[in-house]
Amino acid sequence: MMYFYRMFEDKSKKRTPLSDFGEFSLIKHLTSNFKMTNRTTVKGVGDDAAVLNFAGDSVVLSTDFLIEGVHFDLSYMPLKHLGYKSVVVNLSDIYAMNAKASQITVSIAVSNRFSVEAIDELYEGIIAATKVYGVDIVGGDTTSSTSGLTISITAIGHLNGKDLVERNGAKVNDLLVISGDIGGAYLGLQVLQREKEVFKVNPNLQPDLDKYSYVIQRQLKPEARKDIIQILKDLNVKPTSMIDVSDGLSSEIIHLCTQSNVGCELYEDKIPLDPVVISTCEEFNLDSTTIALSGGEDYELLMTIRQVDFEKIKGNPNLTVIGYIADEKIGINLITRGHEKIALKAQGWNSLQS
Amino acid sequence: MMYFYRMFEDKSKKRTPLSDFGEFSLIKHLTSNFKMTNRTTVKGVGDDAAVLNFAGDSVVLSTDFLIEGVHFDLSYMPLKHLGYKSVVVNLSDIYAMNAKASQITVSIAVSNRFSVEAIDELYEGIIAATKVYGVDIVGGDTTSSTSGLTISITAIGHLNGKDLVERNGAKVNDLLVISGDIGGAYLGLQVLQREKEVFKVNPNLQPDLDKYSYVIQRQLKPEARKDIIQILKDLNVKPTSMIDVSDGLSSEIIHLCTQSNVGCELYEDKIPLDPVVISTCEEFNLDSTTIALSGGEDYELLMTIRQVDFEKIKGNPNLTVIGYIADEKIGINLITRGHEKIALKAQGWNSLQS
Repeated sequence: MMYFYRMFEDKSKKRTPLSDFGEFSLIKHLTSNFKMTNRTTVKGVGDDAAVLNFAGDSVVLSTDFLIEGVHFDLSYMPLKHLGYKSVVVNLSDIYAMNAKASQITVSIAVSNRFSVEAIDELYEGIIAATKVYGVDIVGGDTTSSTSGLTISITAIGHLNGKDLVERNGAKVNDLLVISGDIGGAYLGLQVLQREKEVFKVNPNLQPDLDKYSYVIQRQLKPEARKDIIQILKDLNVKPTSMIDVSDGLSSEIIHLCTQSNVGCELYEDKIPLDPVVISTCEEFNLDSTTIALSGGEDYELLMTIRQVDFEKIKGNPNLTVIGYIADEKIGINLITRGHEKIALKAQGWNSLQS
Repeated sequence: MMYFYRMFEDKSKKRTPLSDFGEFSLIKHLTSNFKMTNRTTVKGVGDDAAVLNFAGDSVVLSTDFLIEGVHFDLSYMPLKHLGYKSVVVNLSDIYAMNAKASQITVSIAVSNRFSVEAIDELYEGIIAATKVYGVDIVGGDTTSSTSGLTISITAIGHLNGKDLVERNGAKVNDLLVISGDIGGAYLGLQVLQREKEVFKVNPNLQPDLDKYSYVIQRQLKPEARKDIIQILKDLNVKPTSMIDVSDGLSSEIIHLCTQSNVGCELYEDKIPLDPVVISTCEEFNLDSTTIALSGGEDYELLMTIRQVDFEKIKGNPNLTVIGYIADEKIGINLITRGHEKIALKAQGWNSLQS
């Protein structure tokens, strides 16, 4: 996969000032590409509100802010990827409820530093994500800002009430399971930040980032695990609790356990790591377990399943058992490779501070 | 009603820096006052997404950004009023679909210029509005920003599909009807901006704003016309089209007419104006019709109804017939007091530029 870095941008590209468009015509320009494909979408953009009909299903709804200088840095985050990622992080929350995502609203506030072409690029990524995940854009707001770019996305999904998986259903003896592998997104950010510093010193040096492409992709173009929801359905496994890994494994495990009033033991040697994560950790002199526990932004799904369901998921390359749920009294612990028991902390375990 | 002006603020009030709270504990602090009262709210804050169930009803959804320095100025907009208004402007869109508003999500991005007490004040207004309008806060995002305050609210409502009123249903010979009176909110802003300049010159001068209290209230604490939706139901009148007046009467009439492919004649002498609007216009040397057409932010409901429904609304103090729908070919016109016909423009009619 090719990455287009803003730092190597072609400055000759056409840049139409936003002021050439009024607010209404900018919205018209941006929304002309939206196509409604979900039967639950009755009416999208163009009235005071969108109209949806879920025919008796429960509706799930989640919203997130993405703010320039806080959540992203445009010097290494291409606008198209930013658009894609802003959709993905919201859909991830819908899947974490075991629901089908069907609509989003997209609101953006932009300063006049941005051109119409820049906003088009952002929307290209947003629209690409809606196609991959099969969701409709049904509304939003477009406004000017006094500084930078702010994106606010609301994702809407639906499900039959009996399929709902919440954070608070984990039971003693359940297995703790995670999809995919973790730690990559955080390391991708470390690589990009290092390259930004190198670029500042020598703008003509073309970096060779090929060997980091996995972790860079995890940072710049994460995917939401819609496929896992389907796999679980196909396997006839309904998790007892589920959450998406946005803040880091440690913090998400603590959410599940505290909301379910249970404890847990997580095995260090079971945490799934990609070989590029391990080699990049070595290069950066970082402890891979610390990164896995505290990194964040991997958008994998962390869940608990009943022991009786173990046979169904055994051997599935998308799902890894990393621990088990125990009585609240034992606490929330990491069992290290050296068989030590360490209490997990919300911001990663102790070694992060050391 | 008393107004608390930020410019006369008591500087001795306690100000806890936001950094004293982590993100999670700030959210916990803010959400501890949220109470769920709607039967359609299955689950509010506390999981990856909110869960709603509308039992077969259609769902309507609208979202708006409010950005400091673009949509509000904290030097004369008290935070509590800002919170109240940000909810109201979103609910107004739901009522404009002839729907019942039931939930909102509230996302805020704040710079460290704001204290915990300031955010509490904002939420006091937000919560006050949810009580007045009977809606639940079911989610949101709380994050830091690099500059100022940004609020993003999504409002959710529902209705039986057959009750839906869109923008595109106006028919030739329908009557054009507006709720309440208009122009006040814009004049309130003019008064507040003038007082801000006066205050800059002499901070000790306590302004006497009593005679402007109606227009200031229209600007600082507007209400959404939930009552009108009930009145229409009670009168057994279903509008053929409807929109809320956020950008100004002229622009909203053009929306209804163009989306319905019709023309219209609006009578200048029928436009409902409060006596304070008229007297303040005289004082500021402004034309009251121009203000009514282009002012905006009144959050009244503009609708079209069938001629046969006229008897039902006749004499209702909340509803005024201001014109009628005509063939597309005649255009969208204002008939002046002097019987002149002037084409309406999106940003108000011509005299605004003169």
